[in-house]
Amino acid sequence: MASAQVGIVGAGPAGLLLSHLLHLAGIESVVIETRSREEVAGPIRAGVLEQGTVDLLVQAGVGERLMREAFFHRGVYLRFDGRTCHVDMQELTGGKRVTVYAQHEVIRDLVKARLDAGGAIEFGASDVRVAGDGAAIEYALGGVSHRLRCEFVAGCDGSHGVSRRSIPAGVLARHERVYPFGWFGILVEAPPSSDELIYATHDRGFALVSTRSPTLQRMYLQCDPLDDVAQWSDDRIWSELRARLATRDGWEPKEGRITQKVIVGMRSVVVEPMRHGRIFLAGDAAHIVPPTGAKGLNLAAADVRVLARAFERHFTAGDSAGLDRYSETCLRRVWKGQRFSYWLTTLLHRSDVDTSFDRRRQLAELDYLTTSRAAATSFAENYVGLPFEE
Amino acid sequence: MASAQVGIVGAGPAGLLLSHLLHLAGIESVVIETRSREEVAGPIRAGVLEQGTVDLLVQAGVGERLMREAFFHRGVYLRFDGRTCHVDMQELTGGKRVTVYAQHEVIRDLVKARLDAGGAIEFGASDVRVAGDGAAIEYALGGVSHRLRCEFVAGCDGSHGVSRRSIPAGVLARHERVYPFGWFGILVEAPPSSDELIYATHDRGFALVSTRSPTLQRMYLQCDPLDDVAQWSDDRIWSELRARLATRDGWEPKEGRITQKVIVGMRSVVVEPMRHGRIFLAGDAAHIVPPTGAKGLNLAAADVRVLARAFERHFTAGDSAGLDRYSETCLRRVWKGQRFSYWLTTLLHRSDVDTSFDRRRQLAELDYLTTSRAAATSFAENYVGLPFEE
Repeated sequence: MASAQVGIVGAGPAGLLLSHLLHLAGIESVVIETRSREEVAGPIRAGVLEQGTVDLLVQAGVGERLMREAFFHRGVYLRFDGRTCHVDMQELTGGKRVTVYAQHEVIRDLVKARLDAGGAIEFGASDVRVAGDGAAIEYALGGVSHRLRCEFVAGCDGSHGVSRRSIPAGVLARHERVYPFGWFGILVEAPPSSDELIYATHDRGFALVSTRSPTLQRMYLQCDPLDDVAQWSDDRIWSELRARLATRDGWEPKEGRITQKVIVGMRSVVVEPMRHGRIFLAGDAAHIVPPTGAKGLNLAAADVRVLARAFERHFTAGDSAGLDRYSETCLRRVWKGQRFSYWLTTLLHRSDVDTSFDRRRQLAELDYLTTSRAAATSFAENYVGLPFEE
Repeated sequence: MASAQVGIVGAGPAGLLLSHLLHLAGIESVVIETRSREEVAGPIRAGVLEQGTVDLLVQAGVGERLMREAFFHRGVYLRFDGRTCHVDMQELTGGKRVTVYAQHEVIRDLVKARLDAGGAIEFGASDVRVAGDGAAIEYALGGVSHRLRCEFVAGCDGSHGVSRRSIPAGVLARHERVYPFGWFGILVEAPPSSDELIYATHDRGFALVSTRSPTLQRMYLQCDPLDDVAQWSDDRIWSELRARLATRDGWEPKEGRITQKVIVGMRSVVVEPMRHGRIFLAGDAAHIVPPTGAKGLNLAAADVRVLARAFERHFTAGDSAGLDRYSETCLRRVWKGQRFSYWLTTLLHRSDVDTSFDRRRQLAELDYLTTSRAAATSFAENYVGLPFEE
C-alpha cells in the first residue's frame, strides 16, 4: 500500500503549490485529482497576483515564466461619474505591484515543476474519499482501487470537493453571503483597451476591463446571476460595455471577436475551523470570495504557505504548534480578504434594493477614495496584498 | 418695514454662526426663531467638534469658553471582541484633536456673542414663513405681524422647518436611508468612566461612553427605535451597558443617578440642491446624519462657513460665483460626511438582517482598522474632520 507524509486532495493552485513547497522542505506528498492534466489547466480564471504571491512563487523557483510573461502594472483605474482616476499602488505601497498572470498559467507552471521533480500527481482519479479521519485517501484509477496512507490530509479540492464533506456534520460553522448579481465575462480577440485594469461603476452597473495577452482580452459586466448567456448578443455586450465604460472624452473599448461568454454567480463563504484532526482545508475548500477583489488564488496561496511551514516544523522538529495554530492564523487573513472583497464589491455594483442615497454614497466613497491618500493607501495595500500573518 | 441683507430662519448652531460670521464681514442679518432663548440652548445634544469647527469658532472670536472648558482628547477607543484599541487621532492626523463640547454650549456662546454685538435675534416668533420666493420672512411676535425684507434667506431651521417647505415641490431631490435601530441615551451623575470616548460593538449591540463634565456623563445603547423609555429600568440599563462594554480585564462603567432617558431614531437624509433662487439651506435643513460619526453640527458649521464667504464676496465685490457654487461646494463635503457616518454606523451596530458572515466581517474590519496605519488614518481624518472644500 502506497503512503506519503501528506495526502493532498485536488491539483488546483492550493494543492499543487502545497505539494511543491513540501517537496522543497523534504516532505513527501501525493496529489489526488479527479480531472485530467489538461482539464486542470483548462478553466480560464482571472489572475491578479498579490506581490506576496509573486514573491512566494519566485522564491519557490516556479516564477521564471511568470516574471517573463506576466503584466506588471503600477495600479488600476477607477472609472465613475464619467471620469477616470488612477490609483498608483506601486507608489502608495512602497513598491508593490499589480501582477496580471492567469490562474491556469500558475497551474501549468506548478504541474510542470512537480512532474519535473518526480512528484506524484494522480490525475483522473475517481471515487476519491478521505478515509479513517484523514489516515488515508482512497480512490480508483483505471478501474483499480487505491489507498494512500498518510499522516495528514490537505483538502485543496474546492468548495464542492470531498475533503470538506469528509468532516463530520456539526464540526464546521458556515458563514455565507450571496450577492444579488453576477458577472458576465467575455474573452475577446483584440489588443488591450487599456494599459492597466479599469474598474468601472455606472448607473447601469459594474464593468471591468482586464487583459490576458497582447491579443486576447477579458471583460466583465455586472448581470443578473440567473441570466442566460443566450440573451446576450455580441451587439448587446458591446453596447453595454460602451455605455458603462463611457468617459467624457469618448473612451471606447477595442472590439474584436468574442470567443467565450460565461456567467458566474458571486458569493462570500467561510467555513471554520479550517482544520479537523488530521484534515486541513485550504483555499476554496474553506472559503470563497466574490471575484471583485481578485483574492481567491491569493488567499489559497497564503493558506498553503502557512500550512507548508507548519508541516515542516512538525516533520523536522516535532513541533506541532504551527499546525495547531493553522486555522486561526489563516482565518485572520481570510476575514480581511473577505472584508476587502465585500467592500470593493458593494462599492462598485448596483443593487435593486439600493436607494438613491446608496448610489450617492457609493460615488462619495469613490470621490473620497481618490482624493484621500490614507483611503487610497488602504485600498492599495489590500489590493496588492496585506503582509502575511505569522 | 424692517429689512436686512440676509434673513436667517432658525437660531440653531447654523443660523447663529452664520449671523455671527456675516456680522464680522459687515453684513446685516436678522435671525427669526420660534423658540425662546432658553429653549434654544435647551436640548442636550452630543458635541464632538472637528478641529476645523474649533478653529472656525476660535477665529471668529467665539471660542474663548470652548478653549477653557472643552475636553480635548487625542483620539477614541474602539472596543470589540472583549478588547480595547486606542486610535491616536492626534498622532495620525498631524495634530488634530477630538474636542468634546456640547452643542448647547456652542449655542449659548453664539447667542451671547450676537446679543453683545447688538445683533438681532427674534426669539419666540410664530407663524414664520418665507415669502416672495425669499424676498422676505413674515412672522408674528406677541400678536403683531412682522415682515422682514431681505435680499436672501438662509434656511437654518432644521429638518422640520419652514424654509425647506417654502421651496416649490419638485425642485428638491431627497435621498434617504432609515436605519433599523436607534440610540437609547442617558445622562448620569457620575465621574467619567473613561478618559476618552469608547465606541463599543458587541453581539448584543452598540454602546458609546461619552462625557459631559467631570460630574455628568452621557452613555448610549443601540435599541429598537420604536422601543419605549418606560421599558428600560435603571437596572436593565446598567446591566446592558456592563454586558456590551465588558472587557477581558473586567472594565465596568461608573454608575450613578440617571437624570435623563431618551430614544432617538437614526436616519441619513440629503436634499439637493441646497439653494433655490434667493433661498439657501444650511445644516439639518438640508441634511441629517446618524449620530455615530458626530457629524451633524460639524457639517452645519462647514455649510455656513461656505455661505458666509459667498455672501461676503457677493455684497463686497458684487461677485456671485460663490453663491452659485454654494450647493455644489457644500454637497461634496456633506456626502463625504454621509459616507463616513454610514460606514461607522454599519460597522458598529447589529442588524437583524445581518448574517453571521456580516458579524465576522464587522470584526475583521475592526481588526484591520486597528492594525493598518492607512485604515486608522482614514478613520481619524474623517473623525477629526476632512479639510474644508473651497
